[in-house]
Amino acid sequence: MGRNIKLVLAYDGTAYHGWQMQPKHPTIQKTLHQTLWRVLGGPTQPPHASGRTDAGVHALGQVVTFLTDKPIPAANLVMALNDVLPADMRVLSAEETSADFHPRDSAKAKTYRYRLLRSEICSPFLARFVNHYPYPLDEAAMIAAAGLIEGEHDFTSFAAADPEKGLDDEDRSKVRTIFSSTWRREGDELIYEVRGSGFLHHMVRNLVGTFLLLGRGTITAKDVKRILDLKDRSAAGPTVGPEGLYLVNVEY
Amino acid sequence: MGRNIKLVLAYDGTAYHGWQMQPKHPTIQKTLHQTLWRVLGGPTQPPHASGRTDAGVHALGQVVTFLTDKPIPAANLVMALNDVLPADMRVLSAEETSADFHPRDSAKAKTYRYRLLRSEICSPFLARFVNHYPYPLDEAAMIAAAGLIEGEHDFTSFAAADPEKGLDDEDRSKVRTIFSSTWRREGDELIYEVRGSGFLHHMVRNLVGTFLLLGRGTITAKDVKRILDLKDRSAAGPTVGPEGLYLVNVEY
Repeated sequence: MGRNIKLVLAYDGTAYHGWQMQPKHPTIQKTLHQTLWRVLGGPTQPPHASGRTDAGVHALGQVVTFLTDKPIPAANLVMALNDVLPADMRVLSAEETSADFHPRDSAKAKTYRYRLLRSEICSPFLARFVNHYPYPLDEAAMIAAAGLIEGEHDFTSFAAADPEKGLDDEDRSKVRTIFSSTWRREGDELIYEVRGSGFLHHMVRNLVGTFLLLGRGTITAKDVKRILDLKDRSAAGPTVGPEGLYLVNVEY
Repeated sequence: MGRNIKLVLAYDGTAYHGWQMQPKHPTIQKTLHQTLWRVLGGPTQPPHASGRTDAGVHALGQVVTFLTDKPIPAANLVMALNDVLPADMRVLSAEETSADFHPRDSAKAKTYRYRLLRSEICSPFLARFVNHYPYPLDEAAMIAAAGLIEGEHDFTSFAAADPEKGLDDEDRSKVRTIFSSTWRREGDELIYEVRGSGFLHHMVRNLVGTFLLLGRGTITAKDVKRILDLKDRSAAGPTVGPEGLYLVNVEY
């Protein structure tokens, strides 16, 4: 079996087809796996993550583990891996952890952030990192309604229609607990931040899409609750783009 | 002749082979020219800039002009051009200017900035936009010596060896006036900012390379003056990478 090493990983997801290994496309998992192979001097099993991120989605603190028999000190792995990884992926920390730690199964909470840029022109230096949304929005209404989805709910209305693609687990239940859900203004950006026990595939992007319907006046705060109760994907708003989404951190 | 339209342009230069039109590579000038052609519905002459930027160099406020006979209001051009331009190029403003205004010949001063990231790990979100330099530096010495190049000097020592590639003009004189030259710390970044009457090809990047020699203790502040007086490119430091360099603005 070997040692179980835990990494915290940040990445600009723009150039990748998400976390999950794919034969023909660059993915985060594949790039990290190839880097581990090269740095550790031999084959390793593919690394595990706290959950998949979709194509174009970013991470500030994705948690990853892999097994190795090599005696390299965990602390030395940070520089060794970063020397080989492309500049849009970086290992922020590395430590040896217990054999039974699994980045997905052991997770207690995850936080995601979604960045909407509200200025008329989107700076070329932000284009990869925000969803440019210069259209009128009732931001106060969005800020006021954000907490409506807090608590334990069946989030079927906000899950991708494809039932096989759970974002962070494989079970069929669509019940998740949201600990906090907030919108806030920061300079030119309107930012959504949500912390929960786990998230379904596309759930954060569908929540943002639904709050945008509210901000545009298409639906009311009462409708947000109604959409949740309907347990019907077609009731909620569209899936917003991946470029504004960040996996902020994972708590254990 | 037609109307002379002045644009202020920002770009992430990472994906471009500099400003200057090239047959086989994407350049800022070529992309803007194609966009003007499309938006204005017909052929135009290539746009002029305040000066070439090299491959990978960024701009916060490049100034550009082009001629057109079309009656489209200048203010409308901002949105019309941005709708067509790739997301890594943005027109910040557009106005009609006098027929004799030339973005290069009319310039009175230009400001460049160079960003060095001093933290041990370079965030994936900064990788395109800074030169990652985590090595020891005597930053106080660099800050103290920055002003030594201010004033009117022959900058031959800091010009690219190729005499044909003036960054912003074609004359043979290597005399330029530097109005201000400063290093400062901003969070994890050490930033060089230089404002001058004009700049030779590679001049800012060669100045930064020379100040880095000073910061590393290879040369002293007295040597900086000596290198300037030698008028010999081989005396100065190496050309640092383009990823940290920004054309900040052009004054008229």
